Amino acid sequence: MKNVITDKVINRLTLYHSILTDFNDEYISSTQIADLLHIDNTQVRKDIALLNYKGKCKVGYKAFDLKLLIESTLRFKTVKNAFIVGAGNLGMALAKYDNFEAYGFNISALFDNSFMKIGSKINGKKIYDIDNLPDMADRLNVQIVILTVPRVNAQNVADFLVKSGIKYIWNFTPCVLNVPDSVLVWNENLIGNFLQFTVNHSIEKELFI
Amino acid sequence: MKNVITDKVINRLTLYHSILTDFNDEYISSTQIADLLHIDNTQVRKDIALLNYKGKCKVGYKAFDLKLLIESTLRFKTVKNAFIVGAGNLGMALAKYDNFEAYGFNISALFDNSFMKIGSKINGKKIYDIDNLPDMADRLNVQIVILTVPRVNAQNVADFLVKSGIKYIWNFTPCVLNVPDSVLVWNENLIGNFLQFTVNHSIEKELFI
Repeated sequence: MKNVITDKVINRLTLYHSILTDFNDEYISSTQIADLLHIDNTQVRKDIALLNYKGKCKVGYKAFDLKLLIESTLRFKTVKNAFIVGAGNLGMALAKYDNFEAYGFNISALFDNSFMKIGSKINGKKIYDIDNLPDMADRLNVQIVILTVPRVNAQNVADFLVKSGIKYIWNFTPCVLNVPDSVLVWNENLIGNFLQFTVNHSIEKELFI
Repeated sequence: MKNVITDKVINRLTLYHSILTDFNDEYISSTQIADLLHIDNTQVRKDIALLNYKGKCKVGYKAFDLKLLIESTLRFKTVKNAFIVGAGNLGMALAKYDNFEAYGFNISALFDNSFMKIGSKINGKKIYDIDNLPDMADRLNVQIVILTVPRVNAQNVADFLVKSGIKYIWNFTPCVLNVPDSVLVWNENLIGNFLQFTVNHSIEKELFI
């Protein structure tokens, strides 16, 4: 029987991968991983068993091998080209976020509508006029956009992206976008994440409704 | 019987809140909310029922009232002071991210160890020498740190934060931190989020293991 990896497992595997990076070719136990993440070690063993990888009894997993296995399972080596639309503070910060590359995630270009920004470069990536996006998406076969425009422009720009053939929008704006079913939106809900963290972990006992 | 709001519900309520912002004092139905988020409308109704809020039959919810109710339930009006540690690209972008304030999240100051940065201001917030953090955390009663230092410094800085009495670390570095149980770390796993999005939604059928 085959298993599909769920969202939660993917999220944890990425965290295991971060940990394994620090262990090079040493062995690491499920307990060591679990302790760092403050989760149960049966959860770690269950997730890793999904990869059909067996550790060495009483020694643990060979960090390097497990790291490679996670990379191939989650396709870190498959290049995923993306555009950043909105070269504001967040867009520029993400363009400089070198950590993406280790996961096969490549920012091909940025787009903006400000003549002050168009033509300049961020981390070696050029900022283009947004009008060039449909043509460049087509030419470079880019289907993913990281959306970092101001809230007030988010829906208009999303409509434009849909018309341009973009299939995935990683939405960093606080606006919930109205797009057809054929386009997938991932709402990067930083505030929601933060609230989960502070509300449920600090004042859980108080948060009854 | 009382209910605790789970992480997933909090995340969705935050998204509903974003949508309601655009509706002012109009009515909105669970179906409208559900369609925008591409989720089931029974889920929306269930979440909102948790708040003990009843919509008007065949009309829906009064957007403004529901928005206020979410704000009070999730304590958007309670000010949560935080420091940003690491005034690099991401730290600076987050300092400029005005959207945090609507959720009661207030960045009191930034910290760095670079003399080039110390003393300057970002979005009206001053960058201080990291050595001043323990004293300022104590004086301003700040327990939350947004950590945006380079990976290589992340653990050392986390150790310093723990010693300084910081209780919550919102970790934007790709390093999984080793901290005592008394300190809570939220790993802002952008890559994990992104992979969930691309892997599971685009090539789900292929991702068998």
